[in-house]
Amino acid sequence: MTNQTVAVLGLGAMGSAVAARLRDTGHATVVWNRTAARTAPHAQAGSTAAATAAEAVTAADTVLVVLFDHASVREHLDPLASELKGRTVVNLTTTTPEQARSTAAWAAEHGLTYLDGAIMATPDMIGTPVSRLLYSGNRDAYDRARAVLETLGAADYEGEDAGLASLKDMALLTAMYQLFSGFLQAAAMMRTVGVPAADTAGEVRGWLGALLPHLDHFGAEIDRGGFDPARGQDVEFTRAAIGSLIAAARGQGISAGLLEPLMRHLDELAATGRGGADWISVIDQLPIE
Amino acid sequence: MTNQTVAVLGLGAMGSAVAARLRDTGHATVVWNRTAARTAPHAQAGSTAAATAAEAVTAADTVLVVLFDHASVREHLDPLASELKGRTVVNLTTTTPEQARSTAAWAAEHGLTYLDGAIMATPDMIGTPVSRLLYSGNRDAYDRARAVLETLGAADYEGEDAGLASLKDMALLTAMYQLFSGFLQAAAMMRTVGVPAADTAGEVRGWLGALLPHLDHFGAEIDRGGFDPARGQDVEFTRAAIGSLIAAARGQGISAGLLEPLMRHLDELAATGRGGADWISVIDQLPIE
Repeated sequence: MTNQTVAVLGLGAMGSAVAARLRDTGHATVVWNRTAARTAPHAQAGSTAAATAAEAVTAADTVLVVLFDHASVREHLDPLASELKGRTVVNLTTTTPEQARSTAAWAAEHGLTYLDGAIMATPDMIGTPVSRLLYSGNRDAYDRARAVLETLGAADYEGEDAGLASLKDMALLTAMYQLFSGFLQAAAMMRTVGVPAADTAGEVRGWLGALLPHLDHFGAEIDRGGFDPARGQDVEFTRAAIGSLIAAARGQGISAGLLEPLMRHLDELAATGRGGADWISVIDQLPIE
Repeated sequence: MTNQTVAVLGLGAMGSAVAARLRDTGHATVVWNRTAARTAPHAQAGSTAAATAAEAVTAADTVLVVLFDHASVREHLDPLASELKGRTVVNLTTTTPEQARSTAAWAAEHGLTYLDGAIMATPDMIGTPVSRLLYSGNRDAYDRARAVLETLGAADYEGEDAGLASLKDMALLTAMYQLFSGFLQAAAMMRTVGVPAADTAGEVRGWLGALLPHLDHFGAEIDRGGFDPARGQDVEFTRAAIGSLIAAARGQGISAGLLEPLMRHLDELAATGRGGADWISVIDQLPIE
């Protein structure tokens, strides 16, 4: 517990979870949201509702920004540069690394103590043992806000480059959406023969859980750079497999669009004489030339 | 242990693992491969090497087919209809549901005892507690081959429609390749700031492991059909998130192609007035109209 007063700007699902967790851990909280009605349940639960972002900021030691996107962050923070001075500003809004670096540059220009954060959790995970948040940028801001931040989940400081937390966030979210969209495709296929999505969820969860350790093997192979198919599966075999998955989806009347980008990368490898390499050499097709 | 003699047609990575496991569990095995050189290590380990597929088949009670694809299955089995009569034929080659049904129809026409199988395991998993195989088609074939099949991994019979095992296989493999390609994208992004792929593998493994239980929630929501964003995350929020992931990838010089199909489905939902629905309603965009 700390005696810091914390402002939470933005009360979407995530901002609301953050404000609730701060209250539950004994922090004085001041909340603000563009649509004022969303502050009411928080005020009832013990937070102070601020009528403007400026009012919220000036009441607080630490300002947590949990807005919709980078544009809304800049829209609301830019006019408050003088009010934010001397306070610790932690931006938890999901933004790109370049946007994080741009906000950090703006903050530095105005002498603000600014930290960029990335939340590796869904709102219901906030404050639980599986919640983790990444931070990068001003080390001083991290040290000052740390006690507050650790109430939300494990707090990892990634480095001085303000873009690092976001980059890792984006990389992990990309993997997450690929996982989730793969499940949606599987559930769509199985629905065509009457299998409920809940059953497919159980199957996919068990199957992918068993496969996750393979990522360590892939990681080691990529770092080795050999792409030796004797230790994995070659491009031609994988093209045949993905071709079957595409045909199977279409055979059930389901779009195979989600698989087509991977198939294109495999085709590129085959067309450039690398059909015998390990299929994970697809990673070398990803950089834009 | 059984006293069945088992023929293994095809000695790629999977066929070799199957043959080795059968030997390890005390089965007499006869192996055949199109490229004969691949039989040598198996002959040294105790299998009988057959010069032709016909020779392998006529020596066996149960014939396991582990070839490259459907075309190679039909190329090698079609001329052997009379030799296969009275034996149990289990096709473990990865094929589409329609291909499985077509081979089952051919087998029925020739009075063969034919089962279609799908291997939910990588070769190194064969015979371990995490190995699982799905079967569908002729129940008699399943019952006769069961003791042999259970040495390879858990053996689930899915139903009389020969396409069912393959369909579930294809659905789960689709989810697997989406998972793996998501990891490759994440590793490609992190490599741009010097993070080894092995580190990203550890991060992705932990993160996705924590997220897998969410699939059960998605499954239940899909079956309920409500797509209530209050219980999840709406399309517009998800469009902004995927837009950030695409921008972050490009900002690091990495192609965002893998994410574009999902973005297109989200755009379709937004364009047809469903921007406020739960984003997993993407599943309703997957059937081809």
